Amino acid sequence: MPSKQRNTSALALKLLEERGTFWLFDCGEATQHRMLHTTLKPKKLEKIFITHLHGDHIFGLPGLLGSRGFLGGTERLDLYGPVGLAEWIEVTLRISRTHLNYELAVHEVEEGTVFEDETFRVEVQPLDHVIPSFGYRIEQKPLPGKLLIDRATEAGVPKGPLLRELKEGRDVVLEDGSIIRSGDVTGPPQPGFTVAILGDTRFTANSIELARGADIVVHEATYDGATAHLAAPYGHSTILDAAQVAREAGAGALIANHISARFLPEDARKLAGEAADLFPVVEIAEDLAEFEWKDGQLRRLP
Amino acid sequence: MPSKQRNTSALALKLLEERGTFWLFDCGEATQHRMLHTTLKPKKLEKIFITHLHGDHIFGLPGLLGSRGFLGGTERLDLYGPVGLAEWIEVTLRISRTHLNYELAVHEVEEGTVFEDETFRVEVQPLDHVIPSFGYRIEQKPLPGKLLIDRATEAGVPKGPLLRELKEGRDVVLEDGSIIRSGDVTGPPQPGFTVAILGDTRFTANSIELARGADIVVHEATYDGATAHLAAPYGHSTILDAAQVAREAGAGALIANHISARFLPEDARKLAGEAADLFPVVEIAEDLAEFEWKDGQLRRLP
Ligand SMILES: [Zn+2]
Ligand SMILES: [Zn+2]
Repeated sequence: MPSKQRNTSALALKLLEERGTFWLFDCGEATQHRMLHTTLKPKKLEKIFITHLHGDHIFGLPGLLGSRGFLGGTERLDLYGPVGLAEWIEVTLRISRTHLNYELAVHEVEEGTVFEDETFRVEVQPLDHVIPSFGYRIEQKPLPGKLLIDRATEAGVPKGPLLRELKEGRDVVLEDGSIIRSGDVTGPPQPGFTVAILGDTRFTANSIELARGADIVVHEATYDGATAHLAAPYGHSTILDAAQVAREAGAGALIANHISARFLPEDARKLAGEAADLFPVVEIAEDLAEFEWKDGQLRRLP
Repeated sequence: MPSKQRNTSALALKLLEERGTFWLFDCGEATQHRMLHTTLKPKKLEKIFITHLHGDHIFGLPGLLGSRGFLGGTERLDLYGPVGLAEWIEVTLRISRTHLNYELAVHEVEEGTVFEDETFRVEVQPLDHVIPSFGYRIEQKPLPGKLLIDRATEAGVPKGPLLRELKEGRDVVLEDGSIIRSGDVTGPPQPGFTVAILGDTRFTANSIELARGADIVVHEATYDGATAHLAAPYGHSTILDAAQVAREAGAGALIANHISARFLPEDARKLAGEAADLFPVVEIAEDLAEFEWKDGQLRRLP
């Protein structure tokens, strides 16, 4: 339920600049309204992942799907989520006579790899909420090592397109017939980043698996220590549960979201403080908060 | 589609103070978010009338229905709208596991009287849009005339509950057995107010019928004179169409809404000016605009 301070749930993941797109995780009512106040353009929306079908996580979907077309989105959109999502989208678009001028592919998820291409792999696992709820692990694949330009020149590679081939991991044949292996003229592969984005859940082992070694884990923290007795009955977690997941997973940083409306924005520091003994790198995600992951560091953007 | 200036469609009708409730006409996405910035309380929401099933008129419904329960609404809620509404609500509540703790009655409308009680009658008629779209006429029934206290005293009615009986239109018997007729000690009945609230439509005769002699007609005005060529193909009206309806119906005042996003808020005066030759009492309804109908006058609240 929205309040003046805090909207329903949605989280945007802006991917590599080269990809030029973003992915959305959950889409509560008025997500498209909030997006008007950001730099995110609906036509650049490539994938939407839904963690679970509670209204505050999906009621903004139909409006955003419709507006994406009006705002020039013509590329295919992939939508992932629990069983039932396809039926709801089908009925909603039909009843409201919403005709999308782009391809919408709805994928109902269970567990395992739900998407993979040259640069990313996305895995899903069930969590433990009052209805089926899922967590997603987004892994960027290792990046090719840096081109060692001196070594390539020594080996006789001329300036030009062959250098790009080598940089992107492919071996090349020179005019004199000699073969240059990419691995010989590039540095070691650079690790990609990994982020785990978890839906509403109690503390559960699958959260730790999904977050294993991740650079960032996004975990709900509906309650604090004083209200911990409410977490299990309502299928939610405390900030301490979230910190415990990040700690056991060996994650790099924790972003806690889905904070109960009982906590005011000014309580954020106190919540982060409660988690600090278990896990020191905690950010509390308020509406429209933006974070950047760069050079192995999580930074809150102003 | 929402813009920073203007949200999707919704219109609240605050009824007589004695009723203590309000009715809503259409419920675009984020209507409940907008309500947070008004004095309207979802638990006091008694009826919702939907003009048509386009997304910008209904996508806020599921969230508002759910929140109404969370916010203490336990009274029955009646929802009226075109065929298809019941299926969509059923599927949406089921898929999102939204359990309402109050009775929700969904009425699919065609034409004629859809609601009547001691004080109000609501009539619906089809309009002319690109999909089935309806207009509603809300008639308050005549109010009992004022109690003529001097005349009642002369007739021997003692101070106390009998006066209230007479005031509310019922005859009474005094202790000495004499019968006092309400009509003999009250003034003439006061006419109630009538308001017509029309959905998206081209200029059409049914609009005039619904607005006949109404105190207020709420009519869409998506376009102005310069963009009039777009109105018919897209199933909408111009400000001139709206003024023509108000004029031919002999209405008291026109509130024009559903203004195209191409018009900025500062264009409102110009739009009203275009209509002035046809119909002088025009208000342009911006988001969150509030109007009061009192003593036969339409007044914009600050
Ligand atoms: Zn939930
Ligand atoms: Zn429409």
